[in-house]
Amino acid sequence: MKENKYDDPQFFEQYSKMSRSVQGLGGAGEWHELKKLLPDFAGKTVLDLGCGFGWHCRYAAEQGAESVTGVDLSEKMLKKAEEMTLSPNIRYVHSSIEEFPYSEDSFDVVISSLAFHYVESYAEVCRKIFNSIRENGSFVFSVEHPVFTAQGKQDWHYGPDGNPLYWPVDHYFTEGYRQAVFLGSEVVKYHRTLTTYLNVLTETGFSLGRVVEPQPDPAMLDLPGMKDELRRPMMLIIQAQKPSPGPRRETSR
Amino acid sequence: MKENKYDDPQFFEQYSKMSRSVQGLGGAGEWHELKKLLPDFAGKTVLDLGCGFGWHCRYAAEQGAESVTGVDLSEKMLKKAEEMTLSPNIRYVHSSIEEFPYSEDSFDVVISSLAFHYVESYAEVCRKIFNSIRENGSFVFSVEHPVFTAQGKQDWHYGPDGNPLYWPVDHYFTEGYRQAVFLGSEVVKYHRTLTTYLNVLTETGFSLGRVVEPQPDPAMLDLPGMKDELRRPMMLIIQAQKPSPGPRRETSR
Repeated sequence: MKENKYDDPQFFEQYSKMSRSVQGLGGAGEWHELKKLLPDFAGKTVLDLGCGFGWHCRYAAEQGAESVTGVDLSEKMLKKAEEMTLSPNIRYVHSSIEEFPYSEDSFDVVISSLAFHYVESYAEVCRKIFNSIRENGSFVFSVEHPVFTAQGKQDWHYGPDGNPLYWPVDHYFTEGYRQAVFLGSEVVKYHRTLTTYLNVLTETGFSLGRVVEPQPDPAMLDLPGMKDELRRPMMLIIQAQKPSPGPRRETSR
Repeated sequence: MKENKYDDPQFFEQYSKMSRSVQGLGGAGEWHELKKLLPDFAGKTVLDLGCGFGWHCRYAAEQGAESVTGVDLSEKMLKKAEEMTLSPNIRYVHSSIEEFPYSEDSFDVVISSLAFHYVESYAEVCRKIFNSIRENGSFVFSVEHPVFTAQGKQDWHYGPDGNPLYWPVDHYFTEGYRQAVFLGSEVVKYHRTLTTYLNVLTETGFSLGRVVEPQPDPAMLDLPGMKDELRRPMMLIIQAQKPSPGPRRETSR
């Protein structure tokens, strides 16, 4: 059984109060960058892995997606997603990302927002996505940045006056299990290096597009604590593509 | 005038004692990874930016490169490079990376080892390289990792017992000038985010190949301090290619 912290009532209540939960995409500090990396959704078949409240699913549908499948392990999240969804083009599936029944050549676009750092088997999931995505299909996802996940506790090193002195990095090349504190609860996450995030994609067959460490939207910099977000990267957005066959680009090895 | 720390007698003497200076490529912790990302050199015209003692130039010539141009700002480094070089296929040019007279469509391979973090105008240099490299040509370079350069002083945070507690990251999104301490001397370096290193390449027209944060060669892990190199990334190796024209791959923006 995959860990399902989002169905823990206390954690869910805390998560529901975050600005990204209340305001949706406009309340997410990275949305202004993620948005630029998304493909044209018109007429596309879209899969959203770890869809949560469904904000990205509804965005894809509003942008003309023909059908959108949102997958999440949390029943509480999906219940709220369904309440907020009117479009008949969106369906929600209760499943972990690992256990979702990926069928071959089924999606034009696969997206995932801040979910893969909860997934232990990233390489396996990438292979499933690659098989499930059509040629020239787009795969765009965000994760917590390796600098953010490496040390484990996901907190600043504070000075004697209680101000954050700097962000501690440790155990960078030791991938895997981390016990982090998020919204006052202990949450299991999986750290991976940047090298792994990118090279698993190329080894699986994807070609890399843009790689972006989003800075907060300048319009949000006056929110409490937001300026500290300029001191270390917190997120990583990766854009990849399943190439069409034909002459493959040569990459020396 | 570009800073030329490597001609400072004291700094040069210290640098000359490093294992990468004495043993060459085999004494460089990242060589086992860099080597895998280099293209086939046979019959190729090669440019090495910041060639130092010329170890990579001689490697390219040994691997069959038709001609190799090594560029460095330090006369002391080039003098020693020339002393160690027998191949008539290698020439050394005394110039900064920025001011080297790049001519159009002149090189099949451009390499650079740990030099671009001394370069203020990375984007401009990338444009010059792009124009100077032939279609399907390879561009492979290593730099100090953004995690290593961000905070500035390039040292661990130590505990009361003098042991390194963790690596401090700060000012990550503030790019540019840093005054670091290297081999006991103050050295000017330029910090850039991973986003900048990669996206300047794609914006210039390169396609991305592999991106690797090298871990030390397992054979070197018993050297003093080497195990700490697993605690944070110190280097970044990027492999890119100048695509042939024809139908350009679509990347959504």
